[in-house]
Amino acid sequence: MPRYKLILEYDGGPYAGFQAQADQPSVQGCIERAIEAFTGEFARVHVAGRTDAGVHATGQAAHFDTSKAWKADVVRDALNAHLVPEPIAVLSAEAVDPEFHVRFSATGRRYLYRVFDRRAPAVLERGRAFWVKTPLDIPAMDAAAKRLLGHHDFTTFRDAQCQAKSPMRTLDHAAVARVGQEAHFTFAARSFLHRQVRSMVGSLIEVGAGRWTADDLQAALAAKDRARCGPVAPAHGLYLTGVDYPEAGGGASSP
Amino acid sequence: MPRYKLILEYDGGPYAGFQAQADQPSVQGCIERAIEAFTGEFARVHVAGRTDAGVHATGQAAHFDTSKAWKADVVRDALNAHLVPEPIAVLSAEAVDPEFHVRFSATGRRYLYRVFDRRAPAVLERGRAFWVKTPLDIPAMDAAAKRLLGHHDFTTFRDAQCQAKSPMRTLDHAAVARVGQEAHFTFAARSFLHRQVRSMVGSLIEVGAGRWTADDLQAALAAKDRARCGPVAPAHGLYLTGVDYPEAGGGASSP
Repeated sequence: MPRYKLILEYDGGPYAGFQAQADQPSVQGCIERAIEAFTGEFARVHVAGRTDAGVHATGQAAHFDTSKAWKADVVRDALNAHLVPEPIAVLSAEAVDPEFHVRFSATGRRYLYRVFDRRAPAVLERGRAFWVKTPLDIPAMDAAAKRLLGHHDFTTFRDAQCQAKSPMRTLDHAAVARVGQEAHFTFAARSFLHRQVRSMVGSLIEVGAGRWTADDLQAALAAKDRARCGPVAPAHGLYLTGVDYPEAGGGASSP
Repeated sequence: MPRYKLILEYDGGPYAGFQAQADQPSVQGCIERAIEAFTGEFARVHVAGRTDAGVHATGQAAHFDTSKAWKADVVRDALNAHLVPEPIAVLSAEAVDPEFHVRFSATGRRYLYRVFDRRAPAVLERGRAFWVKTPLDIPAMDAAAKRLLGHHDFTTFRDAQCQAKSPMRTLDHAAVARVGQEAHFTFAARSFLHRQVRSMVGSLIEVGAGRWTADDLQAALAAKDRARCGPVAPAHGLYLTGVDYPEAGGGASSP
């Protein structure tokens, strides 16, 4: 049974999240309907990162099975045609080994969080970046972000509803840089806890606004106490930008 | 009577254009209502570039008069508060000489046109950039754009409804560059004809897609014939990015 890997871009704004839920619009539901309209058969869509309501993606990875083999570019173009007018695009489609699984084969996930820090509202980036009125100190946030690198108990930066068995995660990359008028926060890890990125960004904003020091952030991490987290940053600034795979396991995504 | 100059950013999508029109939402109408809510008196808002329906701005210049003098930052913050939830932001406010006029004192206007050229729809930039499926040849468009520089009769690139007395304009800057995944077209002139930028971009896209040569573009210009223009590019990719003034005339905008 042919298996196809998809790289997806979407605006998370209109959806209750990636995952299909009864009576709620979902990215998964839209893609499964597009597949059924194209192939004539229902297929379950699996995904590398189940993004929350309102969270965007520029490099989400998904896979599904069909009973018939199609040219990969035909799959991409047909799904895009059936996805109109949803703000969901298939950037690429690729036939992969039936052993490949987007979620279990993934060796890394990358996220971007966009903050627009200026006095006037960010009207053109509304729904695309989190607007904060206070100018943020980028070098201070970048230095503080490095304190989160490595293998830690991330209980402080984990949602109370998080289903993961262990709060231990290894953060491989954490950086804050000025890109145009925005502050861009980038993170990479094998996997993340529920709302971990938004929790870390919300706490780093406390540092950037001068309310916390890098030591405060490190103490919050060491406390392993959810109550020590800063205000969780909203969903609409967050983007899943890429999912990594071993060379042999379906090719690395490169959005 | 104190006069204030404003620098405005807006999403042109919801509006029938900058200019107030009966029964149609306009940027001007929203700002005049915000001024009246703030000062308690009606004031006419004048603007440097009357953008068309759907056209955006990141550096539009406007001015209005009040009977009372306010601190400039108070004007900016109060108007932004009264503009909620409209996608219009006052980036700065500045008290200017009563001789200063945003339209008549302006010595230059700058525009950006954003094109997203890739196979898959540009869902996250929907309403912000013009999506074309064909990959565009950037160096070819940039070279062709240089043919439009200087003093010319721009009848070919002028809307049939254009009210300007003369079709003669001087184009001071025209360039096309790759910025991220997009093609960015930038133009500067003392003033532009109606739909001139969108007409030039639409014709340059013909060059970028390989359907026209730079010589074809130059011949279209020389023909002074509206029928020789390429398909006019849509409003939602266009941004008024800045308006220039002599140093003494209210300060140069620098968005």
